[in-house]
Amino acid sequence: MDFEIASETEELLERYRGFMESELAPLEADAVSLPFSALEGRLDARRGRAKEAGLWGPNLSAELGGLGLGLVDHGLVSEVLGGYLYGHYVMGCQAPDAGNVEVLATHASQDQREKYLRPLAAGEIRSCFSMTEADYAGSNPVLMGTTAVRDGDEYVIDGSKWYTSSADGAAFAIVMAVTDPDAPPHRRASMLLVPTDTPGFEIVRNIAVMGRAGDGWASHAEVRYAGCRVPVGNRLGAEGEGFAIAQERLGPGRIHHCMRWLGVARRAFELMCRRATTRFLGPDETLADKDIVRAWIAECAAEMRAARLLTLHTAWRIERDGWRAARQDISAIKFLVAGMMGKVLDRALQVYGSLGMCDDTPIAWFYLEERAARIYDGPDEVHKISLAKRILRDYR
Amino acid sequence: MDFEIASETEELLERYRGFMESELAPLEADAVSLPFSALEGRLDARRGRAKEAGLWGPNLSAELGGLGLGLVDHGLVSEVLGGYLYGHYVMGCQAPDAGNVEVLATHASQDQREKYLRPLAAGEIRSCFSMTEADYAGSNPVLMGTTAVRDGDEYVIDGSKWYTSSADGAAFAIVMAVTDPDAPPHRRASMLLVPTDTPGFEIVRNIAVMGRAGDGWASHAEVRYAGCRVPVGNRLGAEGEGFAIAQERLGPGRIHHCMRWLGVARRAFELMCRRATTRFLGPDETLADKDIVRAWIAECAAEMRAARLLTLHTAWRIERDGWRAARQDISAIKFLVAGMMGKVLDRALQVYGSLGMCDDTPIAWFYLEERAARIYDGPDEVHKISLAKRILRDYR
Amino acid sequence: MDFEIASETEELLERYRGFMESELAPLEADAVSLPFSALEGRLDARRGRAKEAGLWGPNLSAELGGLGLGLVDHGLVSEVLGGYLYGHYVMGCQAPDAGNVEVLATHASQDQREKYLRPLAAGEIRSCFSMTEADYAGSNPVLMGTTAVRDGDEYVIDGSKWYTSSADGAAFAIVMAVTDPDAPPHRRASMLLVPTDTPGFEIVRNIAVMGRAGDGWASHAEVRYAGCRVPVGNRLGAEGEGFAIAQERLGPGRIHHCMRWLGVARRAFELMCRRATTRFLGPDETLADKDIVRAWIAECAAEMRAARLLTLHTAWRIERDGWRAARQDISAIKFLVAGMMGKVLDRALQVYGSLGMCDDTPIAWFYLEERAARIYDGPDEVHKISLAKRILRDYR
Amino acid sequence: MDFEIASETEELLERYRGFMESELAPLEADAVSLPFSALEGRLDARRGRAKEAGLWGPNLSAELGGLGLGLVDHGLVSEVLGGYLYGHYVMGCQAPDAGNVEVLATHASQDQREKYLRPLAAGEIRSCFSMTEADYAGSNPVLMGTTAVRDGDEYVIDGSKWYTSSADGAAFAIVMAVTDPDAPPHRRASMLLVPTDTPGFEIVRNIAVMGRAGDGWASHAEVRYAGCRVPVGNRLGAEGEGFAIAQERLGPGRIHHCMRWLGVARRAFELMCRRATTRFLGPDETLADKDIVRAWIAECAAEMRAARLLTLHTAWRIERDGWRAARQDISAIKFLVAGMMGKVLDRALQVYGSLGMCDDTPIAWFYLEERAARIYDGPDEVHKISLAKRILRDYR
Repeated sequence: MDFEIASETEELLERYRGFMESELAPLEADAVSLPFSALEGRLDARRGRAKEAGLWGPNLSAELGGLGLGLVDHGLVSEVLGGYLYGHYVMGCQAPDAGNVEVLATHASQDQREKYLRPLAAGEIRSCFSMTEADYAGSNPVLMGTTAVRDGDEYVIDGSKWYTSSADGAAFAIVMAVTDPDAPPHRRASMLLVPTDTPGFEIVRNIAVMGRAGDGWASHAEVRYAGCRVPVGNRLGAEGEGFAIAQERLGPGRIHHCMRWLGVARRAFELMCRRATTRFLGPDETLADKDIVRAWIAECAAEMRAARLLTLHTAWRIERDGWRAARQDISAIKFLVAGMMGKVLDRALQVYGSLGMCDDTPIAWFYLEERAARIYDGPDEVHKISLAKRILRDYR
Repeated sequence: MDFEIASETEELLERYRGFMESELAPLEADAVSLPFSALEGRLDARRGRAKEAGLWGPNLSAELGGLGLGLVDHGLVSEVLGGYLYGHYVMGCQAPDAGNVEVLATHASQDQREKYLRPLAAGEIRSCFSMTEADYAGSNPVLMGTTAVRDGDEYVIDGSKWYTSSADGAAFAIVMAVTDPDAPPHRRASMLLVPTDTPGFEIVRNIAVMGRAGDGWASHAEVRYAGCRVPVGNRLGAEGEGFAIAQERLGPGRIHHCMRWLGVARRAFELMCRRATTRFLGPDETLADKDIVRAWIAECAAEMRAARLLTLHTAWRIERDGWRAARQDISAIKFLVAGMMGKVLDRALQVYGSLGMCDDTPIAWFYLEERAARIYDGPDEVHKISLAKRILRDYR
Repeated sequence: MDFEIASETEELLERYRGFMESELAPLEADAVSLPFSALEGRLDARRGRAKEAGLWGPNLSAELGGLGLGLVDHGLVSEVLGGYLYGHYVMGCQAPDAGNVEVLATHASQDQREKYLRPLAAGEIRSCFSMTEADYAGSNPVLMGTTAVRDGDEYVIDGSKWYTSSADGAAFAIVMAVTDPDAPPHRRASMLLVPTDTPGFEIVRNIAVMGRAGDGWASHAEVRYAGCRVPVGNRLGAEGEGFAIAQERLGPGRIHHCMRWLGVARRAFELMCRRATTRFLGPDETLADKDIVRAWIAECAAEMRAARLLTLHTAWRIERDGWRAARQDISAIKFLVAGMMGKVLDRALQVYGSLGMCDDTPIAWFYLEERAARIYDGPDEVHKISLAKRILRDYR
Repeated sequence: MDFEIASETEELLERYRGFMESELAPLEADAVSLPFSALEGRLDARRGRAKEAGLWGPNLSAELGGLGLGLVDHGLVSEVLGGYLYGHYVMGCQAPDAGNVEVLATHASQDQREKYLRPLAAGEIRSCFSMTEADYAGSNPVLMGTTAVRDGDEYVIDGSKWYTSSADGAAFAIVMAVTDPDAPPHRRASMLLVPTDTPGFEIVRNIAVMGRAGDGWASHAEVRYAGCRVPVGNRLGAEGEGFAIAQERLGPGRIHHCMRWLGVARRAFELMCRRATTRFLGPDETLADKDIVRAWIAECAAEMRAARLLTLHTAWRIERDGWRAARQDISAIKFLVAGMMGKVLDRALQVYGSLGMCDDTPIAWFYLEERAARIYDGPDEVHKISLAKRILRDYR
């Protein structure tokens, strides 16, 4: 076992840190309070500078214009980016586009690669992933109300999706719809590429999540598909493979969230420490002199470091053995890291007190934004049960 | 010991419940998503009907047009109101006005009573309480930067306050300012009544709290006092009594929050139960069949009931012995009830999943709005230490 | 609502406290470290003095020689007794005899009353309750391997029980055995009175529980019934009523544990406070000056008081409406009070440090002895699920 | 970063596992219930076989007859041994001897090496470390009542120690005593080697810890030093270096506990899983089908793995940079691993129910024995504050 981080990786991380500090830190106050549309221009300028600096697309293959980092190294980069609002966006590795790029890289036809994958990877367009429905628990993906009925050379899509993140302003959606209701449950659905200017594709609303409707990339839409027609050639992979592709996307996708959360937690932790040493309580006394605050800081530090190692260990295993072999590990970090981050954020907010609740720091922004971590891509409880079932197989 | 609730109290509670269900429940969807200004007209109409129904001012004395309930009975009413957004507002017992009414009822001169207390109690005007400052920990109220310098028959107020709740649209502020910096710490400050149209009273901004700036009564302002002049007759009580009056206001004020939180928790609990029994997971299966959800519900129910009894017990002791005798009890419920509510809200949100994060239920609204409970009026940690110190005196 | 404790109850509690302090406190060091047999003589002498003082049998009816207290008042007495090792034993209200007395008082024939109930209530003999079996989860009492086969005027009992508390030295056992395996599940078993000198009644061992085998009243036996014959007249109630009687015994029995645990928790809490103020850390510093210890004390105090009120509220409801109406409440306190006590004990031990682990205080004794609280009479988890199911019925 | 365990290490671990399973697993039932003296012969026979198998002294240098493993590899071995009662003892790496060997290897004179170190490393004699005193908090090691007064060529030791583990049957003690009360605090004490047959060395009692007095190696003694004389040549290192040597011993010593706790936790975890899959609840249902149990298992698995990696990472850092550089890391694992183990043990016990409380499994034994983990070598709270202070230095 060797926990040493290679010196070239350390240097790369240092470059990412430098870029973030010089390019994104000054934007933070606005990032917390302004809508995405008011930020987009400045963010895109930074995307350009990221490309110039050779930092664009840490996870993208060289062919797609990225650095092609392995998952452990990307995890370390992602931890850096996660501490800054729009950090991943500026580097072109943001959800849901990053996951969509992976899906397209594996399953897209030559034509689809040219039309969708290339401009998406280059950050010229945005995309969304339209799977979740309000009436069905996401933890059971074989339940689905949206249908795509074959009509000649086209599919006609009807149904309703929600929490389709970043649909507002996206160029296309990857939609999951039932193409054969009579097939076995895991063979019923297919994935379809739907340009958002297709008639029948309708954004009903950007859902107000934790009080914020958001806009553009920073939004979660309710989408209605009303007789929305796409050519058969817009299907991704074979008919009935929708569920399999979704698994492929969601499985490894979870570790990307975890790697980002490490950065969120670390940032909140650093802010908490800074606040503790500077909050005036009286002559010669700050919050850093209070044992309760100290105990919180120590507990957060220990749990953060442990969660970080478990995440990197999972990344290492995925690199070595593939993500299917690491499914237990992914479930474990999904709830462990989400829980750790939630605890750090809660305590950071408490240490900041009334200041923590307002827009003068990014703490409240993180607190609200990341509460979803325990819910999306399978709630914690579903992952716990799934992990336990796999473990218990060995004891029967 | 007799835990029976008197039948006339039960009847009164039933009337409050009926009013809330018929008058406020239908308003909830709008209350979650619209600014206060868009609701104010409808809320005021309901205030009128509350007066007609003889329900206005459960805690106000008969002389001030209220029901003059004792603290235990008011606690039970408050628990009902707390489950509805704007419940307390509609009944004229909302913070910060309710506390200001109490302060004025005790300390106001005849002139002040006529000009401020009467219309405030009647709901004709609103008020705010301007004490907290950004640079000083609220837990140490002898630290304060705002000054009121005597100049002839006037005080000239200079300084900066924040989290002055409901300043936006208030008719007057009760401001705490240092009138004698050389006095012993607890005798330095005085309370001054400042009409908000006084030159030099300036609302800098409504602070974005947990992402929402709010407006009107539902806001928390940063206020600047720049050479703001008020007549000496606007002082409440004697010079130097500011700290003593603040203690009087904050001490018993805390139980009012607790009583409201009981209602918030109960409402979230009921929503969680309803969601559990209706969330479709598959044929013949809902979330109510899941043991983890069941365990959450049971734990919340037990802690909620226990916290409720401790709160009512505290109210009973205050009624019998006065709030000073109940200071230990008040500290205990301040953090116990806040913690219980936080747990119930977190679990309710988790049970609701993505639906819980959006505006389609009041869960997210409560979750964001009430995170402050562990911070304002003294953070939990300060109350814990204070309670322990009192307890430990008996063991020395 | 009136939380006032009647003055005559206060006086009675004062007498119990006085007796405990003068008669049991001096015995504590020995009680922690010696076997029951070495204490029995001294305990029995104190039982005599309790009778002389008119304190024997707080829960026993006057007819059976006790004080016939209602459940709320008995709860308050039990809280006092619970703080002292053997407190309940000395007052004749110890498990399992207290529960057996209740069962006999309701179901015993005249002959059984004379032979078993009268001397048991008087403390002349001891008894045990033999229901739990190793191979079946106690949470599902319809599963049972022990059988009682009718043979003329006798039942022949065969089977194996464990955790038959206090069997060692008991004069008789109340045994639950299947008398009709073909009946509906809840009608299969009956209760039989088995004198322990009956051939075929065999104590296999006193089980080492948390490292201590114990002896006499303070033990938990594995018992084998090997062709053990008792007359049909030793059956308690009608054939097939075993399960119903068990429910009757266990339901209300749980609150007795809770009331005792309140006393255990309070005692540990007081010890913790005493330790905090006296543990020398340096000149002018003790553990009571440490904020972490203070926070623990405050949290314990608040949770202890809340749990106490919920327990007394449950007792009040049982007194008013019967225990069946209070089943929700009983489940709630079963896990809430057990959890609270466990937390207080854990923290008290931590505050005592190495001293807390050794026999020089009763902390370790409580810590080990009361870990079982979360297990016996239905593990916490079973009660949580049961409580939630009842609650959720109202939401369907 | 490379998390791969070298194949030769894997093979070694497999040999340790094999030895433990064949030699120690069959002893477990007796190990749980019998005193050390009744086991010693059998344990010593196994020590012999461990030497024959080339497994003795994984952490001992080759010169001292061991394998000389690095700390990471020894951590992996220790995790295996920790799952078996007396696992470390049989391999000659048990506390307190392992720590004493390290101290002697660094500080002993040639004479001391021959007389004490060699036979200790070979397992021919046992030792103890006599530092803790009842009246002074161990967290403040400059407070100490025991004195060693120079009298010619001898020191005369007077004082009282407790929790001197394994004193019963030890050949010698390493005693910490004040040799110069007027020196600066950290220079007051020295370490002295005291053969236990020295007049004035007196074992007052084996302290009953968590109800068990224990004996031999498995005991914790109160020791009185009454005019106990040792030659000046029995001093370890220079006069006044006692505190420095103690730091050296305790600092790295803590990770040894953590590595053992990983094994305890893993063993309890495996037992819990086994119990879950085999506990009969009804036809076709076991505890493994219960979601609450599953959630516990998943949480334990995730936290166990994370704590393990943090411990190995700490070992790696100590190997690379020395233990002083890793002080933060050591503090972090001290409370993180202790807390994790405590949680796993508590849940394992709960899953086992009444069976978990008795001697039929090692769960209760672990539960009692390892509660001390949060107390010895500095209570969790002291390590948290210490870690936080170091972290906060970077934020001032």
